[in-house]
Amino acid sequence: MEKIRIAIAGYGNLGRGVESALAHTPDMELVGVFTRRDPASLHTQTGVPVYKMEDAPAKAGEIDVMILCGGSANDLPTQTPDLARWYNVVDSFDTHAKIPQHFENVDKAAKESGRLAIISVGWDPGLFSLNRCYGQAVLPQGSDYTFWGKGVSQGHSDAIRRIPGVADARQYTIPVEAALAQVRSGAEPTLTTREKHTRQCFVVAKDGADTSAIETAIKTMPNYFDEYDTTVHFISQEELDRDHKGIPHGGMVFRTGKTGLQGENRHIIEYKLTLDSNPEFTSSVLTAYARAAFRLSKEGHTGCKTVLDIAPSYLHPLSGSELRKTLL
Amino acid sequence: MEKIRIAIAGYGNLGRGVESALAHTPDMELVGVFTRRDPASLHTQTGVPVYKMEDAPAKAGEIDVMILCGGSANDLPTQTPDLARWYNVVDSFDTHAKIPQHFENVDKAAKESGRLAIISVGWDPGLFSLNRCYGQAVLPQGSDYTFWGKGVSQGHSDAIRRIPGVADARQYTIPVEAALAQVRSGAEPTLTTREKHTRQCFVVAKDGADTSAIETAIKTMPNYFDEYDTTVHFISQEELDRDHKGIPHGGMVFRTGKTGLQGENRHIIEYKLTLDSNPEFTSSVLTAYARAAFRLSKEGHTGCKTVLDIAPSYLHPLSGSELRKTLL
Repeated sequence: MEKIRIAIAGYGNLGRGVESALAHTPDMELVGVFTRRDPASLHTQTGVPVYKMEDAPAKAGEIDVMILCGGSANDLPTQTPDLARWYNVVDSFDTHAKIPQHFENVDKAAKESGRLAIISVGWDPGLFSLNRCYGQAVLPQGSDYTFWGKGVSQGHSDAIRRIPGVADARQYTIPVEAALAQVRSGAEPTLTTREKHTRQCFVVAKDGADTSAIETAIKTMPNYFDEYDTTVHFISQEELDRDHKGIPHGGMVFRTGKTGLQGENRHIIEYKLTLDSNPEFTSSVLTAYARAAFRLSKEGHTGCKTVLDIAPSYLHPLSGSELRKTLL
Repeated sequence: MEKIRIAIAGYGNLGRGVESALAHTPDMELVGVFTRRDPASLHTQTGVPVYKMEDAPAKAGEIDVMILCGGSANDLPTQTPDLARWYNVVDSFDTHAKIPQHFENVDKAAKESGRLAIISVGWDPGLFSLNRCYGQAVLPQGSDYTFWGKGVSQGHSDAIRRIPGVADARQYTIPVEAALAQVRSGAEPTLTTREKHTRQCFVVAKDGADTSAIETAIKTMPNYFDEYDTTVHFISQEELDRDHKGIPHGGMVFRTGKTGLQGENRHIIEYKLTLDSNPEFTSSVLTAYARAAFRLSKEGHTGCKTVLDIAPSYLHPLSGSELRKTLL
């Protein structure tokens, strides 16, 4: 069997996650990592070669799919369309409001080069988006609910770290049990932001910092915390490193709705993820969609797609007839 | 907007469910019901016209998709390939072991006629199959679990009714909470049939029947009950009609697995359905896939497909750009 040749662009948590996912994926192999750092300074977990990002175009003939593992704020908006000029690409662009523009940019580049791109792959956007789509299609008379957590929000943790007097911080987003119970009852409640999630912060204050001022700054921070019930715990750096080192996350997508001429029957669809490592799970989703990108490109498809445009069988290593026999 | 013209073949619970689903689906309309009964004897819920099954070929120009609502044992094995000679068709064929053969038969007929067929649509096979596929693709190192219930098994209820002395019966399949807890812990347990589900039977005995003999006959029935812990409750016909009239069902598909070079992180994917009406929910899934059949046929696709071969966006009434804006 000819293996699908994969490269990684960007070697942070996500890139390392793709590297370890590929170590357990017999039909694919990792052939290189591209970085903007000095390649000599970077040692991969599996010893795979490291190249300069500028050398990516020269390697185009040796790589079937490039998995982009950079950030949505600064890397992917330019990197994905740039690399789509040379490669089939998969990214995890997750700035929801900017997805339509990113799609257009990547679609144009990939159509011009005759490559296949899949953007916004992961779990939200990604598997959660799929479930919103299936849920709405199957229960058109109903309501959507998405809950996140319990899990670490990097964005909120970063926001706390920017407050004067804060040395380090970790923020957990936690779904409110009472809200979950209402949704699971099928009652289709209307829930405010405050009713759906709470925010729990573990903060390391600098020596002599005013902890009460820090707590107020957190709880009143617009957009990030002011609409939530937030608890703040001051702990030592040792405690933070010992108890809050992981990057767990997860959440739930619900579609609840009615069927019957008079809407007499209720149905509840719940999709729930409980993840020990947010970046490693996202990497695993990226890896599965890289298989789809390769196959779609082989079939002659070009341009940009999202998870909504890709049939599930493209993600799975087995053939159509094997899937029908074992999964249906 | 031109509506998608749908017809129903077979007017039982499933056919009535499709009829009510279409009443809430603005981009589709029901144009007729086909039946093997005398059309004059059949009064539809919405007053839609009823035709003889033999007249189906003559109506081919007036209908975009035929949704087959017959049974998997006797109707669909011949009806789906027969009707695929004239129509784009969608069925809910659910005899898992016979799906590959049914696929081949329908594929041949639909390719010859240039029509598009989608088979085995519903929730299992159907939405559960999708989740098994996505789960295995995303977490290749892991385990699958499917639980059914709490819900009514028609097959098991029918099996009890065939026992001498039984007037009526209703059987519930119930997942074992301890097994669910083990799976949700991520421990990837090995579970026997008995450990996963229990069976609860409500039985109306005929006057003078030997209830103890009936109970033994149920509990020792091969394949249906002998591998399960089964409880049998004798009740009156009035109680059965009052308390066990509904057809609820549901269940869960889990994929639990590990990521990381050493498998150091655990992840749990749970997809859960809680359905007031098994046939109405199945009908809603059929209706969404009829939209996909119409669109795929418009694009020039022919032959047989399953839910695994169809991208989620085909099920949803909104356009690709609207979906990217609202669901990703």
